[in-house]
Amino acid sequence: MSHKSDIEIAREAAKRPIQEIGAKLGIGADDLLPYGHDKAKVSQPFIDGLADRPDGKLILVTAINPTPAGEGKTTTTVGLGDGLNRIGKKAAICIREASLGPCFGMKGGAAGGGYAQVVPMEEMNLHFTGDFHAITSAHNLLSAMIDNHIYWGNALGIDQRRVVWRRVMDMNDRALRDIVTSLGGVPNGFPRQTGFDITVASEVMAILCLASDLADLERRLGDIIVAYTRDKAPITCRDIGADGAMAVLLKDAIQPNLVQTLENNPAFVHGGPFANIAHGCNSVMATRTALKLADYVVTEAGFGADLGAEKFMDIKCRKAGISPDAVVIVATVRAMKMNGGVAKGDLGAENVAAVQAGCANLGRHIENVKSFGVPVVVAINHFAGDTEAEIAAVTDYVAGQGSEAVLCKHWAEGSAGTEALAERVVALAEGEGSAFSPLYPDEMGLLEKIETIATRIYRADGIVADAKVIKQLEEWEAAGFGHLPVCMAKTQYSFTTDPTARGAPTGFSIPVREVRLSAGAGFVVAICGEIMTMPGLPSAPAAETIRLNEAGDVEGLF
Amino acid sequence: MSHKSDIEIAREAAKRPIQEIGAKLGIGADDLLPYGHDKAKVSQPFIDGLADRPDGKLILVTAINPTPAGEGKTTTTVGLGDGLNRIGKKAAICIREASLGPCFGMKGGAAGGGYAQVVPMEEMNLHFTGDFHAITSAHNLLSAMIDNHIYWGNALGIDQRRVVWRRVMDMNDRALRDIVTSLGGVPNGFPRQTGFDITVASEVMAILCLASDLADLERRLGDIIVAYTRDKAPITCRDIGADGAMAVLLKDAIQPNLVQTLENNPAFVHGGPFANIAHGCNSVMATRTALKLADYVVTEAGFGADLGAEKFMDIKCRKAGISPDAVVIVATVRAMKMNGGVAKGDLGAENVAAVQAGCANLGRHIENVKSFGVPVVVAINHFAGDTEAEIAAVTDYVAGQGSEAVLCKHWAEGSAGTEALAERVVALAEGEGSAFSPLYPDEMGLLEKIETIATRIYRADGIVADAKVIKQLEEWEAAGFGHLPVCMAKTQYSFTTDPTARGAPTGFSIPVREVRLSAGAGFVVAICGEIMTMPGLPSAPAAETIRLNEAGDVEGLF
Repeated sequence: MSHKSDIEIAREAAKRPIQEIGAKLGIGADDLLPYGHDKAKVSQPFIDGLADRPDGKLILVTAINPTPAGEGKTTTTVGLGDGLNRIGKKAAICIREASLGPCFGMKGGAAGGGYAQVVPMEEMNLHFTGDFHAITSAHNLLSAMIDNHIYWGNALGIDQRRVVWRRVMDMNDRALRDIVTSLGGVPNGFPRQTGFDITVASEVMAILCLASDLADLERRLGDIIVAYTRDKAPITCRDIGADGAMAVLLKDAIQPNLVQTLENNPAFVHGGPFANIAHGCNSVMATRTALKLADYVVTEAGFGADLGAEKFMDIKCRKAGISPDAVVIVATVRAMKMNGGVAKGDLGAENVAAVQAGCANLGRHIENVKSFGVPVVVAINHFAGDTEAEIAAVTDYVAGQGSEAVLCKHWAEGSAGTEALAERVVALAEGEGSAFSPLYPDEMGLLEKIETIATRIYRADGIVADAKVIKQLEEWEAAGFGHLPVCMAKTQYSFTTDPTARGAPTGFSIPVREVRLSAGAGFVVAICGEIMTMPGLPSAPAAETIRLNEAGDVEGLF
Repeated sequence: MSHKSDIEIAREAAKRPIQEIGAKLGIGADDLLPYGHDKAKVSQPFIDGLADRPDGKLILVTAINPTPAGEGKTTTTVGLGDGLNRIGKKAAICIREASLGPCFGMKGGAAGGGYAQVVPMEEMNLHFTGDFHAITSAHNLLSAMIDNHIYWGNALGIDQRRVVWRRVMDMNDRALRDIVTSLGGVPNGFPRQTGFDITVASEVMAILCLASDLADLERRLGDIIVAYTRDKAPITCRDIGADGAMAVLLKDAIQPNLVQTLENNPAFVHGGPFANIAHGCNSVMATRTALKLADYVVTEAGFGADLGAEKFMDIKCRKAGISPDAVVIVATVRAMKMNGGVAKGDLGAENVAAVQAGCANLGRHIENVKSFGVPVVVAINHFAGDTEAEIAAVTDYVAGQGSEAVLCKHWAEGSAGTEALAERVVALAEGEGSAFSPLYPDEMGLLEKIETIATRIYRADGIVADAKVIKQLEEWEAAGFGHLPVCMAKTQYSFTTDPTARGAPTGFSIPVREVRLSAGAGFVVAICGEIMTMPGLPSAPAAETIRLNEAGDVEGLF
């Protein structure tokens, strides 16, 4: 068992030149656009040339509802990718990029942990290949052009009270949540109240992650609704004339980024939309490219399976025409205990009964995922203090659900700790096959889609929505948006909208407070609870201790 | 004579892999951090290893006061670099990076023109290597931390009316010039009036360009004054605790970028501070690195010689301990005609008398530059319609000033068009040598420094300053800032503060409206006229026609 920190392990990594990692997938050096020696983008002509190849197997890693005990979903994604390579499969992983802003509040994070990490860690937490900066620029160009249009005569008749497109910054800056712009008189335009969101909450981010190619990206950008006229007719990004220039700003950002795991296996790290007001998955471009190049592609989705896996299936898979050949649900003994009612401070003591009680949360996720018609395996991400009796309690419970749980020790052992999981995943993916179908058809009404997710996935008795919300959904259906899937924005800590309600609660309803239309990304957002789209910094932000030490290494970021 | 556009010529360039360009300067492939195949940053350990090498010769390219006719300063910088290589010297050029925001208003620009350009043109006008995005992030992290400090109790006692640190965005967005932040109640902080500048106007940009290394960068960042207490005591970035994290964000951005000219000669393109509220030169890091690697380094400074060359000498050279071995002043027959009173529409007709009259502007710049103790040569940047009599008028005038003017045809012919200029520059630089001294000593009072520049460089009768301005300068002297050089912010179109007063005006004074302290960059800004730090977009912004064509090329950006 290692006692080194994630960053210490990452810094000791024997990284290979990125051209060697690309070569493992058959990508030539000329088709990699390098960013330094350990990061690269895959060139568009190379991707275009892959169209006729068969797809590899797609494995989704999802999890129980997260608890402060940690579940290790990304760590397991990385560990499984390495494990599949270890047993002789050509495997790649696909995960999201990190947001810069939050790293200056709480400490930034590794991509994975222990001996199951993706590197280079510092760069991935800082500017990486500039994708998020490009998204920020594209988003804010549209914002500037809207105000500029109004300034120069407002030929489109935009109602200045109904501009719905805000600005973004990849920074935790609460002062920008709610602002008044264009003060100072005539040369500065017409004052109006607006604000900034964090970049990962931008619809441009969701679009980049759902676009199938550059042409599709530009079309979706054009479809963004930015404002309404006085008689509530929508004004789009295309009306403003910003779509072409935004696509130019994003032409490199849409190309998938290739890095490596500690075991020098290929990892695509691309895109990072919010998992609440957006769908929380890495880019379709990266996933599809990986599927053409590898026999196995391991990916993950944000938050627990109730939010992440559902959106992965109903938004990403539906839109991209892909589906998982197997799903891994990550659980830990510690998280089961917390779901069983144990406080964080008491996790050290063995408590088999609590583990058993908490398994109800896991059980519901297993049922839910199976309902999409895909095979499931549970990965128990091992922690040092787990007892054999506690592990057995989880294993027995899962067996009782007709599935299998596999103990994994990738954090401490790397791929040696996921061999069994890898073998099981291969057996499932190459077995009788999945019979994937999304939860609801395109044709279902928008309100009914929300209700379906709430009752069938969350197990609520129903939804509660104001007349205003219902009328809005009907108006969108009338305007031709009824075929869109629904993107739920809800707390990740519970099946309910109460973050403290762990386990497998029953007897509750889901209040739908507000709905938003992301016409470019292609979904309707149903907001069920408080959603923060611009975080603030804490009283002692991590930024105060982040610095370069004398060796030139970054300190305080992790 | 080519009839191709700059972008057509740039796209036909036979670019060499950046490793080959690096090899010309003795930079190994491992010491280049590639960004794609045609851009790279030079690694810090490699730069550190150059300290004991002798410096090459430094050539500054400056110009007459710019007119709408165009003078071609960057084009001549590139052409001279290529010309020096053509005559067998190992030469590199050092120029500034382009700002993204303005490209969406008016069309973006080539770095150079015709057959004297730096490539890749699109990338240099878009995200390039991400330096400006890093500067934006670092600047705005400090902004967020200031408001966050106030939010969590304001232990430093910041007077919220006296926060002088704004936010920045690399975008032309007039709506952000003057805003109120932190509306929305308690969770969003204390409302206050502030605004955004464009990124190139950030003091962080000036600091990056003046820092000698990463440690010096961090020290300067710490010195930034961000606010004052109620009793006017300064609060610095170091007090806020942001300097370390900002240096981390800038650790790659400070490393010089290497690209190439159309003739495959090395070009460092790094940094781009405003030439009004900052000093308008590329980075000290790039210039110093180039001097260690090349026998000749050709660089330029923003605007005409009255602003650009003066700041180059009195700010950059003074701070970096370097000095030019020769100065090239770029003039054109067309610009001489406009300085002689001809309107832009009448430039087509031969007008020797107007050329002769306009030469007074050139003459004053020659005198001024010589007063710094450095040898001067005039480059006449040839335009197709120039007549022999007009060219002779300039040549004769310059000879009468005791200098030499050399006709250059690099726009049409590349380095073949600058051979004569290159030979003359070598003769000057390797001749009796320069006896450089800045215009004023560090010890001179701040007001006297402003007066010295106004009377000796602009030839004003004197300066006009309110008691408030004079008192402010005295306070800064008392606080220990009296040794700083002065950075003049004035129109570039005239020696006076009236942009329409061309030629060599006399009988005017320079009004000093406002002074600002850039304690991190290390200069006092004297604002003499209207200075715009956040541009707006025009009524038909270039962004509306910028798009990717079917071949994947960017259209409308140029």
